Amino acid sequence: MNMAIERVAVLGAGSWGTTFAKVIADSGPDVVLWARRQEVASTITETRVNADYLPGISLPANLAATADPAKALDGADAVVLAVPSQTLRVNLSAWKELLPPDATLVSLSKGVELGTLKRMSEVIREVAGVDESQVAVVSGPNLAKEIAVGQPTATVIACTDHDRAVDLQHACSNSYFRPYTNTDVVGCELGGACKNVIALACGMAAGLGYGDNTMASIITRGLAETARLGAALGADPLTFAGLAGLGDLVATCASPLSRNRTFGERLGKGETLEQAQEAAHGQVAEGVKSCSSIRELAAAHGVDMPITEGIHQVCHDGLSVRELGAALLGRDRKHERQ
Amino acid sequence: MNMAIERVAVLGAGSWGTTFAKVIADSGPDVVLWARRQEVASTITETRVNADYLPGISLPANLAATADPAKALDGADAVVLAVPSQTLRVNLSAWKELLPPDATLVSLSKGVELGTLKRMSEVIREVAGVDESQVAVVSGPNLAKEIAVGQPTATVIACTDHDRAVDLQHACSNSYFRPYTNTDVVGCELGGACKNVIALACGMAAGLGYGDNTMASIITRGLAETARLGAALGADPLTFAGLAGLGDLVATCASPLSRNRTFGERLGKGETLEQAQEAAHGQVAEGVKSCSSIRELAAAHGVDMPITEGIHQVCHDGLSVRELGAALLGRDRKHERQ
Repeated sequence: MNMAIERVAVLGAGSWGTTFAKVIADSGPDVVLWARRQEVASTITETRVNADYLPGISLPANLAATADPAKALDGADAVVLAVPSQTLRVNLSAWKELLPPDATLVSLSKGVELGTLKRMSEVIREVAGVDESQVAVVSGPNLAKEIAVGQPTATVIACTDHDRAVDLQHACSNSYFRPYTNTDVVGCELGGACKNVIALACGMAAGLGYGDNTMASIITRGLAETARLGAALGADPLTFAGLAGLGDLVATCASPLSRNRTFGERLGKGETLEQAQEAAHGQVAEGVKSCSSIRELAAAHGVDMPITEGIHQVCHDGLSVRELGAALLGRDRKHERQ
Repeated sequence: MNMAIERVAVLGAGSWGTTFAKVIADSGPDVVLWARRQEVASTITETRVNADYLPGISLPANLAATADPAKALDGADAVVLAVPSQTLRVNLSAWKELLPPDATLVSLSKGVELGTLKRMSEVIREVAGVDESQVAVVSGPNLAKEIAVGQPTATVIACTDHDRAVDLQHACSNSYFRPYTNTDVVGCELGGACKNVIALACGMAAGLGYGDNTMASIITRGLAETARLGAALGADPLTFAGLAGLGDLVATCASPLSRNRTFGERLGKGETLEQAQEAAHGQVAEGVKSCSSIRELAAAHGVDMPITEGIHQVCHDGLSVRELGAALLGRDRKHERQ
């Protein structure tokens, strides 16, 4: 049975959370955007702009902001979780009692939780105590700054309950944002979690001076190993050929805006992890951390992921980028499905 | 049963034919490269350089050149066909009596024959009168100029006879070229044939000022419609997630070296087909022609290919690029597999 979504809470006012809130508001439903800091909420209310995370973008009139999670969640038909992946568990625990019982819980976070090796939808189910049919995932080529200015984009809304996915699809369809539904939640989440590691590898190749051919080869074989991990975890291999796999990966690997690609490029040019981190204002790229948890997940399921393994060795075991390239090309010759 | 390939004829000394001849020679086998013009063959023999098509690249000593097809074909274990797709039939007809009876016939050409709507391997089987098990296809992210300088690349060798594919794999594996085998010849050929149309679409989006997100969405949905056509023709949908699908497509769409992308960009900026053609030294991009034959093939099999259809309308029916964008985004909302 389909139900109209009329009111949406978006929790997290970073660039992607704010952009997705705008996408929904531009599609019809009323949106309340929660920001952790009161001054961010106040500025949005007063100026209609989130100057810190989405400067220059005017937010629509049916989008309100608040720093009070209870106000954001009150009466919401859907709750969009847009906080960093490693803080999702602690944030959601604090909001648990405020969640409207039947609301669709929507994850925008991409990653695998360190330690537990759980996907974001698993963390949500566990913390909120809901059935998997109530949790949806949004994934795809989602460069916030391009979507915020209305550049045409396709994306995927995945939920094991197809009707719920369709409700959400209607709540965020407009002239620049085109969502497709999918029931393969596992596949959609893994695509988003693994892409940063592959973007690091593409950056390293660029740093060595290699061109689009090498990049295309890494993207394809990186997606192949992601799909192998997905198959072991119950995902549909075809999901990885879609927007949450290939689409997200291509946008991340091709974009000069991608932090992971830029970070990898520095390593490829011979900088150390510390030098690259310093250049990135002290931040380590997401892929540097997630290559270890994905590698661990792959090992637990007996899946061969040579690129992820190699990136882990470069980032954490002192392998040089040149040695990595030679090792990848020197492997046994194979059938493409292996 | 596997057989060593020791001598290879490469027919066609354009940039990709010459590069692939170098790849094989660098992998071990002796190569004879046939050039249509005697002066090209002589220059290669005298200077070890194909100055017209691959300037600055020194060719290995075990690569000889000739303008006599009989000399090139004499004793060849494999015959690589590297002529333009629309001239393959007439060229191969002329060489037919010279082909060693058991040689593997290898297609480097990408396209669908105008009029007959046949793939290149079908043309080869028909003209040479051989079984499909004797015909192989090489496809993947193959930007000749990057491979010629030794940048790392993966590719696919497809043949319905796995043993033959493995023989060929051994004949072209080296420190910079990594071939994978596949038995899905139909899928590998279609990926290469459809990519130029999608590259035109990516160029148009860039011409309108859109970024990597839009490009990633077009690549993904373009690959989805290619896979639908492939499924109707008996291909394995997973092939399109591989090097001959995604890999080739990403390299073509991302590269500033791609003629189709550049041509589309001019159309996206408002130039007419005639203006874009003039800027391309009188040449129309391959995708402008192939969008019509692919559209015809899709119609014959009842397959929906909205991007190909739209590109056909822009190139041949006077639709504007802006109208195309609005039409694609305004379609019915769908499941990702549709």
